[in-house]
Amino acid sequence: MSSENSPQVSSLRWRGDRLEMLDQRKLPSEIVYVDYSDAAGVADGIRDMVVRGAPAIGCAAAFGLALDALRGVPLEPAFKALAASRPTAVNLFWALDRMRAKLASSGPQSLVAEAIAIFEEDIATCILIGRFGAERVPEGARIMTHCNAGALATAGHGTALGVIRSARDAGKRVTVIANETRPYLQGARLTAWELVQEAIPVTLISDNMAGHLMQRGQVDFIVVGADRVAANGDAANKIGTYTLAVLAERHRIPFYIAAPLSTIDRGLADGSLIPIEERSADEVTGFGGVRWAPQGVRVAHPAFDVTPADLITGLITEKGVVDRPDTAKIARLFAT
Amino acid sequence: MSSENSPQVSSLRWRGDRLEMLDQRKLPSEIVYVDYSDAAGVADGIRDMVVRGAPAIGCAAAFGLALDALRGVPLEPAFKALAASRPTAVNLFWALDRMRAKLASSGPQSLVAEAIAIFEEDIATCILIGRFGAERVPEGARIMTHCNAGALATAGHGTALGVIRSARDAGKRVTVIANETRPYLQGARLTAWELVQEAIPVTLISDNMAGHLMQRGQVDFIVVGADRVAANGDAANKIGTYTLAVLAERHRIPFYIAAPLSTIDRGLADGSLIPIEERSADEVTGFGGVRWAPQGVRVAHPAFDVTPADLITGLITEKGVVDRPDTAKIARLFAT
Repeated sequence: MSSENSPQVSSLRWRGDRLEMLDQRKLPSEIVYVDYSDAAGVADGIRDMVVRGAPAIGCAAAFGLALDALRGVPLEPAFKALAASRPTAVNLFWALDRMRAKLASSGPQSLVAEAIAIFEEDIATCILIGRFGAERVPEGARIMTHCNAGALATAGHGTALGVIRSARDAGKRVTVIANETRPYLQGARLTAWELVQEAIPVTLISDNMAGHLMQRGQVDFIVVGADRVAANGDAANKIGTYTLAVLAERHRIPFYIAAPLSTIDRGLADGSLIPIEERSADEVTGFGGVRWAPQGVRVAHPAFDVTPADLITGLITEKGVVDRPDTAKIARLFAT
Repeated sequence: MSSENSPQVSSLRWRGDRLEMLDQRKLPSEIVYVDYSDAAGVADGIRDMVVRGAPAIGCAAAFGLALDALRGVPLEPAFKALAASRPTAVNLFWALDRMRAKLASSGPQSLVAEAIAIFEEDIATCILIGRFGAERVPEGARIMTHCNAGALATAGHGTALGVIRSARDAGKRVTVIANETRPYLQGARLTAWELVQEAIPVTLISDNMAGHLMQRGQVDFIVVGADRVAANGDAANKIGTYTLAVLAERHRIPFYIAAPLSTIDRGLADGSLIPIEERSADEVTGFGGVRWAPQGVRVAHPAFDVTPADLITGLITEKGVVDRPDTAKIARLFAT
């Protein structure tokens, strides 16, 4: 197995009759796997962010259906609960559609194998994304990323962190600036942790320091994941991504989105149609049981934002990099 | 006393023989005043952020010198300790220079009265800033601010929050979006609290949501304070301010800096010369005793950034608003 294929920790482990999900809410202080034996439990785990990251959510949902298929119960409630778990990441709906098609063609006994196939394909896809993306990474680049689009967000290797891993594996001496990614701190808790595990040098900053570092010429390359890409290339990703793209344009820093084709929602003409999840106030008013905001304050908590395609240098997919994505170029990606 | 003149809580209280400073590290959960009876203690309080905010730091330093003058001890160690407490806010050095001039002209017995004068002038200055700024605020404006440039950051009323208070007092039905301002959370802990106290409607967001709200057309006006403004109008303020200015330009949202003349450092030609304080890593890796970043991660923590003058719609001072500030316009401000 190549080093590309062996992230130190897996977000999901299929055990034949159950699914183990790494509880990402507890990272980096504890490494705990939670057992799931039915789709309803998996749906709860997705909603509560035991697992997160668009490709990993898709894989988890597929395994959730596989679990209910093994139990021999009707599958419609599973489809319904999983579809209602989180709204923005389209890989969830992509995986459900694929499982539904398999169910129609081959019956419930085919669903375990299909879920495993989705999982294994996701690893292979991430490795391709990593290799294509790594070609764009300059030697010695100081790479900024946001949120976690790593092994933890996928079946393995990662999308944005896959590009960084592959660049490292290709011998490029890269370093990483990880934005902490308030309010859920996926950058501080997950990305910094993944990179420390792999001994890739990483500097943690709060999100609002990104502009200053770009202004000072300390950022060479930006790569992030996506939760849903519209047909024209507009990309929804973790809140704060849009701001990075605006700053990158001002400072002429390459800004890449790394995502599999399963993240592209060709049914939406542009990013204005992507549903943006509004999460709970208590994730903004404090963290980890510490509350720092005063009583009586209102809170807004959009969990994602949309970066318009014209701010995206390239969309890195398993079929190659789409430079300056637009509707025609993305359509061609699916035609070949 | 007008409502403009009575913020609910004061950052500093002069008690004749001692200075009480509100411990802003404990807000909003506790309202605790700490007693100081010498300059060395005040310098520690400034360094440790018991008091923060450029004008309030200047006032505190003046009172620190007054305390040592009352004690009858040599004043050079006090000047030295206070000057070394924090590097970026120029009001500190402005206040020390003014106290030194008074000492030279009138002797140590004059320093208590001079410190009180600096304090009272700061309140009057903030009220003028508030009134000039309020004229620029549209009726019903949704105003974004960053960090805390409120009563807590000054002797009273505030600079950026002074504009908001004065707009409210002028009958404009404004609402506020407070950026939480990582890592020290002055927006969540101080600004949200000040505004809740005054029943000005406030919505708290994490810093990385600002771009999304601007993109969605939910921000009409931005006003922030400053820690040091160079002779050409470049303005150092809390980390994250530069990013807001870049976003504001893209979305054609008015972006104002509110600051007294004592914040303008005419000795620095432009913002590249402003010293940027680097603070400790542990403010980034967690908060309030909770650590969320992994061991082994490096941290960057620039506490301020510099917004170039060409991104500033106007500099709101006690002498009026300087539209699109530049070196010539700022020089005229001091000539009249």
